[in-house]
Amino acid sequence: MALIVQKYGGTSVGSVERIEAVADRVVRFRDEGHDVVVVVSAMSGETNRLIGLAKSIVDQPDPRELDALVATGEQVSMALLCMALHKRGHKARSYNGSQVRILTDDSHTKARIREIDDSRIRADLAQGSVVVVAGFQGVDENGNTTTLGRGGSDTTGVALAAALKAEECQIYTDVDGVYTTDPRVVERAKRLDRITFEEMLEMASQGSKVLQIRSVEFAGKYNVPLRVLSSFQEGPGTLISYEEDNQMEAPLISGIAFNRDEAKLTVRGVPDTPGVAYRILGPVSDANIEVDVIVQNVSADGTTDITFTVHRNDRKKAEAILQDVAKGMGAREVIGDDRIAKVSIVGVGMRSHAGIASTMFKALSEVNINIQMITTSEIKISVIIDEKFLELAVRTLHTAFGLDKTDDNA
Amino acid sequence: MALIVQKYGGTSVGSVERIEAVADRVVRFRDEGHDVVVVVSAMSGETNRLIGLAKSIVDQPDPRELDALVATGEQVSMALLCMALHKRGHKARSYNGSQVRILTDDSHTKARIREIDDSRIRADLAQGSVVVVAGFQGVDENGNTTTLGRGGSDTTGVALAAALKAEECQIYTDVDGVYTTDPRVVERAKRLDRITFEEMLEMASQGSKVLQIRSVEFAGKYNVPLRVLSSFQEGPGTLISYEEDNQMEAPLISGIAFNRDEAKLTVRGVPDTPGVAYRILGPVSDANIEVDVIVQNVSADGTTDITFTVHRNDRKKAEAILQDVAKGMGAREVIGDDRIAKVSIVGVGMRSHAGIASTMFKALSEVNINIQMITTSEIKISVIIDEKFLELAVRTLHTAFGLDKTDDNA
Repeated sequence: MALIVQKYGGTSVGSVERIEAVADRVVRFRDEGHDVVVVVSAMSGETNRLIGLAKSIVDQPDPRELDALVATGEQVSMALLCMALHKRGHKARSYNGSQVRILTDDSHTKARIREIDDSRIRADLAQGSVVVVAGFQGVDENGNTTTLGRGGSDTTGVALAAALKAEECQIYTDVDGVYTTDPRVVERAKRLDRITFEEMLEMASQGSKVLQIRSVEFAGKYNVPLRVLSSFQEGPGTLISYEEDNQMEAPLISGIAFNRDEAKLTVRGVPDTPGVAYRILGPVSDANIEVDVIVQNVSADGTTDITFTVHRNDRKKAEAILQDVAKGMGAREVIGDDRIAKVSIVGVGMRSHAGIASTMFKALSEVNINIQMITTSEIKISVIIDEKFLELAVRTLHTAFGLDKTDDNA
Repeated sequence: MALIVQKYGGTSVGSVERIEAVADRVVRFRDEGHDVVVVVSAMSGETNRLIGLAKSIVDQPDPRELDALVATGEQVSMALLCMALHKRGHKARSYNGSQVRILTDDSHTKARIREIDDSRIRADLAQGSVVVVAGFQGVDENGNTTTLGRGGSDTTGVALAAALKAEECQIYTDVDGVYTTDPRVVERAKRLDRITFEEMLEMASQGSKVLQIRSVEFAGKYNVPLRVLSSFQEGPGTLISYEEDNQMEAPLISGIAFNRDEAKLTVRGVPDTPGVAYRILGPVSDANIEVDVIVQNVSADGTTDITFTVHRNDRKKAEAILQDVAKGMGAREVIGDDRIAKVSIVGVGMRSHAGIASTMFKALSEVNINIQMITTSEIKISVIIDEKFLELAVRTLHTAFGLDKTDDNA
């Protein structure tokens, strides 16, 4: 008997039938003797419907009012799920963010949780009730409704699990776990039984869409074991937690992540003097353009080249800024390239193993893929390559690192 | 410069276009220098959509969860209206029932308002902001969302106007005021410029659907002048207030109300002993059947007849109860009749004028309408007649009491 937090996304509560299925699952956990706190998203399509209403009135809705508007979506789901639980003879009570109370700062549409009052939830659990909480929302200290921004319901789930010291936070979604890579690209991709927080972070930031980075960070920080499962089929999912001490056979590489949303920008012939990186990247960041990979190699003949990647949508804007900057500092030229992709291998195992990088580069060279840029972190190596080689690169690396599904685990 | 509370019903905020039109009107009042507090209902159809979702899960949804669910409807409207006001360059802030805070008892789905905290609203008004409040909802002392039941948004408007000591509470709806009778029945029906609370109560309880009885009672109790207006066309509407002292020419009769939703039940040959009325009506009321008109005439030969009316939907249930009761007390028989209608003349003027009743009865007899029952109050005379004469009776009385529209006020 444990306390479990379950979070269901929009497709998992997308219709009355889906909500009934969620209720059935919650009842199974109750019948096994667990205490259950459920966090729900808005029914799929509802948040977009509400935002559509707002945008049909004004392009840039006031953030306070936008929060008041969209927070209703999760409140509908929470009440309906409670009704479905009552129908099954179970006690259940719903709470919106203000009722819980999930206290946040006052940054509307992207608020951060400050504090969770767990007293009402604990009292209800003690009475044998399931507690259903509206995800994605909180309240600031002046009583204004706030929302947590993208992936906010995952964050609500993790924060509640941390506050309640739950055994695990189960994130129900439309995939049955975290895979070694995207199964649409590599047919033999495998579901992972376990992955570490750090690996999951790298996978998420490298393009795996299963979980929002923020909730993974949050879970890691408070050491809340996360489990990703499908709400449409049974299965153990993937457990995301800290590395176990005595994992003798931790795989070298857990997965291959990739991303084709980026563009590459290079400023060539930059005088190699202190402060140039800031003079180039400062204006880009001032324009609210997010920069991902940054590479500057050692200089030759007193000048250097600085290359970085941005989201493709920001390429034109970034390029215009760089033209000005380059002119101001006497750089030779600015070159932009949309047709790139990033491929990363991720794994805590690589910390203690030499030769991972060379295995990667060798595998790519054997299929004649040219590497344009390389960056590395403790548990990740990323390369930028020509976009048209993306699928080939992912499949090649998946095989090279022994991730392909065998008949044993097919 | 005054403080005005405006309440807009579901059809008045039924689409983005209608919400924009509401914003335009609010801006006009602001431009005239008034402080404005707006109470909004859910967009038309929204409450039914939400209840439909609930009922597709369970026939009798838990009242607490039902309140949490349907209260979202008004919260959507309040946020959208604020956005439309911002678009027009006006400050506006929304509040749901909990944020205001409108404290109610804990009778979910039919809560009563206990107390309104006006501090946030006053602070916003002082800052030059329009305040938009979600109608129909409040919060109990444990933080649970409550709703006020039918006509709840009108009640919110009146309660806020009372708490804020507003100059008037304007109720915007799809009719342009209160009429002498239903214009669909009497073409020459006139819009009334004024009507008293008492008259309005009698009109409402006699079938006029313009305002809910509860909000009229509430407005009368706190002396909040109510004005009924159309949100679709301009016009002064009808002001509902206490009688002015020096109204030399108060009309004798303000209007003709009618109702064809009732059924008549008669218990004949009841022993004329103390307690029989209770023995007959007690079990009916215990079965939660609302009784309207009750008539018992003086007895002859030691027995009497008791007749009362109930809603037609309750007739069968009431008749079954009465059969048992009649048997138990040795009454002769129980007779039910669906084919009846009630017609009432309403007016504070009748207090000081004799002959109103005889004018009514004479007018009906001249068109050969038989009167089955009569009841009277201080400012109202009601008759029960055969349903098929309803329109004739209403038109006849409308003319007899001089209410027909003339070319002057056409």
